[in-house]
Amino acid sequence: MIVGLLGGGVIGGGWAARFLLNGIDVRLYDPDPEAPRKVEEMVENARHALGRLTFMPLPEPGTLTFAATPEDAADGADFVQESAPERIELKRELLVAASRAARRDVVIASSTSGLLPTRLQEGMHAPERLTVGHPFNPVYLLPLVELCGGTRTAPETLERAADVYRSVGMHPLVVRQEIDGFIADRLLEALWREALWLVSDGVATAEEVDDAIRYGPGLRWSVMGTFLLYRIAGGDEGMRHFMAQFGPALQWPWTKLTDVPELTHELLQRLEQQSDGQAGGRSVRELERLRDDCLVDVLKALRMHGTGAGETLAEYERTLYARGPAAADGDGSAPLRLLETRVLPEWVDYNGHANETMYLRVSSEAGDVLLRLIGIDAEYLRGGGSYYTVETHICHLGEAHADERLHVTTQILGCDEKRLHTFHRVIRSSDEEVLATVEQMLLHVDTTAGRAAPAKPEVLERVRRIAEAHESLPAPERAGRRIAS
Amino acid sequence: MIVGLLGGGVIGGGWAARFLLNGIDVRLYDPDPEAPRKVEEMVENARHALGRLTFMPLPEPGTLTFAATPEDAADGADFVQESAPERIELKRELLVAASRAARRDVVIASSTSGLLPTRLQEGMHAPERLTVGHPFNPVYLLPLVELCGGTRTAPETLERAADVYRSVGMHPLVVRQEIDGFIADRLLEALWREALWLVSDGVATAEEVDDAIRYGPGLRWSVMGTFLLYRIAGGDEGMRHFMAQFGPALQWPWTKLTDVPELTHELLQRLEQQSDGQAGGRSVRELERLRDDCLVDVLKALRMHGTGAGETLAEYERTLYARGPAAADGDGSAPLRLLETRVLPEWVDYNGHANETMYLRVSSEAGDVLLRLIGIDAEYLRGGGSYYTVETHICHLGEAHADERLHVTTQILGCDEKRLHTFHRVIRSSDEEVLATVEQMLLHVDTTAGRAAPAKPEVLERVRRIAEAHESLPAPERAGRRIAS
Repeated sequence: MIVGLLGGGVIGGGWAARFLLNGIDVRLYDPDPEAPRKVEEMVENARHALGRLTFMPLPEPGTLTFAATPEDAADGADFVQESAPERIELKRELLVAASRAARRDVVIASSTSGLLPTRLQEGMHAPERLTVGHPFNPVYLLPLVELCGGTRTAPETLERAADVYRSVGMHPLVVRQEIDGFIADRLLEALWREALWLVSDGVATAEEVDDAIRYGPGLRWSVMGTFLLYRIAGGDEGMRHFMAQFGPALQWPWTKLTDVPELTHELLQRLEQQSDGQAGGRSVRELERLRDDCLVDVLKALRMHGTGAGETLAEYERTLYARGPAAADGDGSAPLRLLETRVLPEWVDYNGHANETMYLRVSSEAGDVLLRLIGIDAEYLRGGGSYYTVETHICHLGEAHADERLHVTTQILGCDEKRLHTFHRVIRSSDEEVLATVEQMLLHVDTTAGRAAPAKPEVLERVRRIAEAHESLPAPERAGRRIAS
Repeated sequence: MIVGLLGGGVIGGGWAARFLLNGIDVRLYDPDPEAPRKVEEMVENARHALGRLTFMPLPEPGTLTFAATPEDAADGADFVQESAPERIELKRELLVAASRAARRDVVIASSTSGLLPTRLQEGMHAPERLTVGHPFNPVYLLPLVELCGGTRTAPETLERAADVYRSVGMHPLVVRQEIDGFIADRLLEALWREALWLVSDGVATAEEVDDAIRYGPGLRWSVMGTFLLYRIAGGDEGMRHFMAQFGPALQWPWTKLTDVPELTHELLQRLEQQSDGQAGGRSVRELERLRDDCLVDVLKALRMHGTGAGETLAEYERTLYARGPAAADGDGSAPLRLLETRVLPEWVDYNGHANETMYLRVSSEAGDVLLRLIGIDAEYLRGGGSYYTVETHICHLGEAHADERLHVTTQILGCDEKRLHTFHRVIRSSDEEVLATVEQMLLHVDTTAGRAAPAKPEVLERVRRIAEAHESLPAPERAGRRIAS
């Protein structure tokens, strides 16, 4: 698949990163001579973030090329995304050019934050394939994308765009009524206008406004939206009670009108100074990294609970896993290579190297891959069979540091109807140093009866095939060790 | 310390939970006969949440008693917090009563979401000790509390209130200018009014509005506030560039005026129906649990990066650790009991019991407690000495399930100048069943030179004292095991 991108700023660059890292080729047009550098930096940031976000096998990254004209970017593309500055004439010019160069069946999406699609499709060739596809910064991490068609947009255009966005891990939200600012930006703008008034009136600084968000309600908004949160706040009686209690407060002077403070030189200067103070000398690049690292972990936290953006991530991972290369069981000339990962910053402890528990953790993940490979899937588990670990021996041999690439190899040392004896090596990929060995004995259990029981024949068959292939491998030096004082 | 609480609804009950679980006695007045049941349910929810939030030793919970009058709640209290419904006459009545009954030096705080403190302190005895202390739901998890004094408030009142809030893990934000709605609620109200318009105009449903938040900008707001996020979105040129690019959009019709849609019967009914649809049959209690579980993990995710609410949590944990009972090294008649915890839901895997890696994780935490006990502190680490684990043997004997209480005991099997041989047992507290044993060999290293080296004499002295006491204990059955096919 090839995506044509028009514009390579913060949003366009974010799109480039999301598409490329999902294995899609990108042709990007941006008249800014600095665009290639900026986009490549953003892709690098996104690569770091995505590597932390998921262990699932990502496809080989797509190829990024730069197009000299908008027509070049759109010609031969399977999907076009426009992300130019919010000036309607500029956007229209690009969309018209792209609509002439792109195949007639290619969906053309605009990243506009709030301009009406009906106005954007004026003058376009085949305007029925124009939709708004409004993402949020950072585009490579936040799942939301608002879809909104104009009066001439065909319904299937929205469906096709939603499919493309879903395939790269996003959550499409269809805005059913065409309205300036769609949904999210209306909410954002309301809060932003109020925030500007607070600074303009000298009530609070930029930092104080930000603290009022991130230490309080902002934490909640990562989990649920305002309506559901207020339902809960209504206590046992829910929404009706909440409206009865807080409805009257809506008449009180708790907000300004949403007209906007005049952006005088003085106000702009104040904003700039307060923003500098808040950044505390950290570059935009550093702040971006901090934001992304935190967002990754917030997304992972939500994934554990299978809710909202966490569910989007889980679904994306299921797709990645299904799409990824089937783990080969090899020809028996070497242990299986079942897992590749990087040392995550949070695994590094006060000694400056990876915490001792990390080695078991990645080996345990590799063990899970092995189990899937021999046929222990969700259906098998539901049928009441599973392997439990009964004994583990870890030898810590070297130190892994943050961000180093690791892989885990797995050798089967023995097996019978119930037992599976494995030996994992955690290896630093750059120099092939073995950092830890993890020897394990697994027992097949009948989980309904709660006792050891033989595995099903088709599983044993697969286990034996691998075990036989591994018989000719040398026995690992550290297998069968005991700890002695 | 005793805190007097006036009001035991969603906010008052949340305060009760936060104070009680931090070892503070609470006397609560609420005329609602259902208040005791509701408050106790909320304390139970909070206990669950806090147990997941931190492994640090929490103090013995305080005692909750119910007072028959506001005077009873305030009399003898060291701090008073009012959380009545947002009706100024009602709040004033309670504050006046409390101000007569409480000692003159006792700070009286109001949880009001936006009423002016100058109006609240009218008629109070010693009004200089009145401050707003505005928390956010759930009070036992969100760190933000806005402080705002009235014209008659003494500056030290704010400082003393901030100390109390900080001691229970909160982040006080002083609102320097008295204004309706303070800071956070002005922002919340602006967004909320816009959200109500979207529903009122039929543009979006409650669920669609919520999705526009939680899949997108809401995720960011848990990490940073609007100003810093927009600085980053401005790219390399920061805030100046952002305002130049998006300043004009402020003049566009992307929000409604902040007057409010008329709360007609029809609109209220629509809100209620959409809210029911969104809840999908889940009770407020279930939604509350989901919200809290996610918030706990979001807070933990941020703690890893030491930023915002995560830094507040880290600081709180340092206080808890310093305040906690010094881990006793015992009389040698039993292994050391170094850690107590619960099985967190995220440790439970597809088999329905705790993942195999959990046993090493809690034993590793116990090992860290042992190291602190023998004098391996931050200063020792900076001096270039530390213990590294070189070998680990785990026997998996039983299964732990979600929410079960566990403790870890640690026995020293041997030691010399460089080596420390430990044996942990992971035990289910309810029936004392040993679920796993974890045997480890640790090596003392000179981290600067990168090789094994003797520990400092004062550390060895402490290690030997424990080891000698443990010599008379029976050798564990599973020590020195090897894995054999």
